[in-house]
Amino acid sequence: MPVFLDTADTDFETRFATLLAAKREDSPDVDAIVAGIIQDVRTRGDAAVTELTAKFDRIELTAETMRVSADEISSAIAQVSADDRAALELAADRIRAYHIRQMPQDDSWTDEAGATLGWRWSAVSAAGLYVPGGLATYPSSVLMNAIPAKVAGVERLVVTVPTPDGQINPLVLLAADLAGVDEVYRIGGAQAIAALAYGTETIAPVDKITGPGNAFVAAAKRRVFGKVGIDMIAGPSEILVIADADNNPDWIALDLMSQAEHDESAQSLLITDDADFGRAVAQAVDARLETLERRAIAGPSWRDFGAVITVRDLDEAAKLSNRIAPEHLELCVADPLALSEKTIHAGAIFLGQFTPEAIGDYVGGPNHVLPTARSARFSSGLSVMDFVKRTTMSQMTPQALRAIGPSAEALAISESLEAHGLSVRVRLDALND
Amino acid sequence: MPVFLDTADTDFETRFATLLAAKREDSPDVDAIVAGIIQDVRTRGDAAVTELTAKFDRIELTAETMRVSADEISSAIAQVSADDRAALELAADRIRAYHIRQMPQDDSWTDEAGATLGWRWSAVSAAGLYVPGGLATYPSSVLMNAIPAKVAGVERLVVTVPTPDGQINPLVLLAADLAGVDEVYRIGGAQAIAALAYGTETIAPVDKITGPGNAFVAAAKRRVFGKVGIDMIAGPSEILVIADADNNPDWIALDLMSQAEHDESAQSLLITDDADFGRAVAQAVDARLETLERRAIAGPSWRDFGAVITVRDLDEAAKLSNRIAPEHLELCVADPLALSEKTIHAGAIFLGQFTPEAIGDYVGGPNHVLPTARSARFSSGLSVMDFVKRTTMSQMTPQALRAIGPSAEALAISESLEAHGLSVRVRLDALND
Repeated sequence: MPVFLDTADTDFETRFATLLAAKREDSPDVDAIVAGIIQDVRTRGDAAVTELTAKFDRIELTAETMRVSADEISSAIAQVSADDRAALELAADRIRAYHIRQMPQDDSWTDEAGATLGWRWSAVSAAGLYVPGGLATYPSSVLMNAIPAKVAGVERLVVTVPTPDGQINPLVLLAADLAGVDEVYRIGGAQAIAALAYGTETIAPVDKITGPGNAFVAAAKRRVFGKVGIDMIAGPSEILVIADADNNPDWIALDLMSQAEHDESAQSLLITDDADFGRAVAQAVDARLETLERRAIAGPSWRDFGAVITVRDLDEAAKLSNRIAPEHLELCVADPLALSEKTIHAGAIFLGQFTPEAIGDYVGGPNHVLPTARSARFSSGLSVMDFVKRTTMSQMTPQALRAIGPSAEALAISESLEAHGLSVRVRLDALND
Repeated sequence: MPVFLDTADTDFETRFATLLAAKREDSPDVDAIVAGIIQDVRTRGDAAVTELTAKFDRIELTAETMRVSADEISSAIAQVSADDRAALELAADRIRAYHIRQMPQDDSWTDEAGATLGWRWSAVSAAGLYVPGGLATYPSSVLMNAIPAKVAGVERLVVTVPTPDGQINPLVLLAADLAGVDEVYRIGGAQAIAALAYGTETIAPVDKITGPGNAFVAAAKRRVFGKVGIDMIAGPSEILVIADADNNPDWIALDLMSQAEHDESAQSLLITDDADFGRAVAQAVDARLETLERRAIAGPSWRDFGAVITVRDLDEAAKLSNRIAPEHLELCVADPLALSEKTIHAGAIFLGQFTPEAIGDYVGGPNHVLPTARSARFSSGLSVMDFVKRTTMSQMTPQALRAIGPSAEALAISESLEAHGLSVRVRLDALND
């Protein structure tokens, strides 16, 4: 049973705070093991990577077979059904069209003092994308990570994907191909992250690493952060649905279950202004849980972390939503756009009853890599911005230096940084001669 | 003596690689101590903060005196000279004018399928700015951190600044006042970071923490990352000057020293296409090091980490610059704009001989918080973007769902996520009824 809360209850605040603070994930402490693996890859390169791959993935690689060849990619892609290919192509096209609009613009202007200022954006030269192997290998995630990188202009985009017992998902290779990935290596775990960050004889190092992974991968990303850039460390998925009574309870139940089926630690929340509707949704969830293929995952998620919260009105719903700062927020109400103006802390918002969150996972266009664990309060989903960086530009004329240089000198002196001040002063003196 | 390299030398590549790999900073391992402090503040709140402040800063605080009062701020500001105030005001105005242009735009559009897509930016609600106390307290850094936050629309901006033995720099309080900071607390170290991240009885928690600090502060920021957002962990400062022979060696020497005087671990590099000019600059540095106030810092920095590199031409200079990916890059050449098109990996570029880097530290307008340690390959300086986050928006019409829903369903099935597919299917079936 999920928890049922009502803002009218006297103990609501306590119970809501407990819900917010619930620790949904116990990351095993693998940091020491990961540190050893990274050091091993830094020291021994390919030899370490192939040994670790033999140990963890039960396949024997050489420097030559570590990379998935163009022929292998072609023949894997040929196995994909026409329907699956068409669906993946539609997704890729829509994701690309959305992300192209994210490209930031350069700017340059000359101000009143005569200073020419501005900035210029440029792409990260090389990026690595970690793709999980085995069961949780999602071709859609390959598109969501790789397309923004290529839209940004990343020249060299590398995928690593472990292939336990040699198994690889043809759809993952098709997604990589559609997205324009340049190199694919059949390695995984902390050893793949180390190879991407530090390079080996076979794999040149990259500047930025993105993509989801298990506890070992997450710990490795934290460790190489600084040497390379990384994306966020994603936690278990979450959805908050705000729905009024004018909805089909079964539709909302399925939306809740579409997060719950990801992971036993996923969290599905419903806020409604109608307690009867909330109970109807909970009943619809129970009914769906009797037959859902992944009920062994979705059931515990809903039981342990699910909640149905009844509020007095939608303003109250918006306030609670901002405290939750959900990764995914569905607004199934009469005027979803108006409500969305108030729900400012959310990774992605889905407006209206015809926008189930699953649309955003695949074909909507926006990215499905989104901030979890309340981090939408301060961070954003993956985007083109993760693969570009900004260089600021300044050019003074003699006139501009005369106008603002003395203030720089005064501040340098106040901070006891004499050379800073002198570097301005010698130029001012030359101009005044 | 700094190292002298020439790309024409046979051992250049080896020596340049050594220069790039030089470890300039040995961070003491304070992680265990910091973990204890954070736990203590989480458990005991104000009591822990005041005890730790008594221990480290030798001042006795209470919950009431922890915050710097409006009266104290006013009377401190009254001590600032008119010249210093004018300089700080000019800096604040110019930094604000630059950062206002960085505000990102919302977008919304309806595509061919009938889907309305877009995104919306919103400010982080509350941010904390760590300001170092004691010697390295820089009012300019207060402006550089606080102004972007306020331009972004952060409602509640909190400064923590330790006041060892009760000392506080009036210019820091003036900078905070000019920038619109809302609360100032006289606490520092890991205990201040913990108080900002988790809150105490007196200090409400924030969502994002920025600002420089010592090893304890840096370790604490790493630890609270995830609970709150943080900016980069800054390393020692760096400058690369690319200069041809048509420059005054003393000007370039002072620019190099303006980084070297920050820190013994700072790095100042010169690349020139004229070996004689390189020697002339090195001589000018030696002459300046005889009298410079901070020669005890600048001298070791130049000796241990400085370098003069002679190249065949400016194309070669640009290639080396991109491998260095400097925090600050000065282009003192005949056509700096043309050269800047090739030097894409840099935090900030200063064009021409009348733009000493010190202008950018204070009054240029661009931010002086910039990526160090080669991280300009993948990251950018501080900006308004650090204090906003993006929510993606999607709204399907029945028509749009009919157009793209089946592809989402196909991909969900291929990924074995049945509830995802069903959440689309039930809506499509209802539309087809």
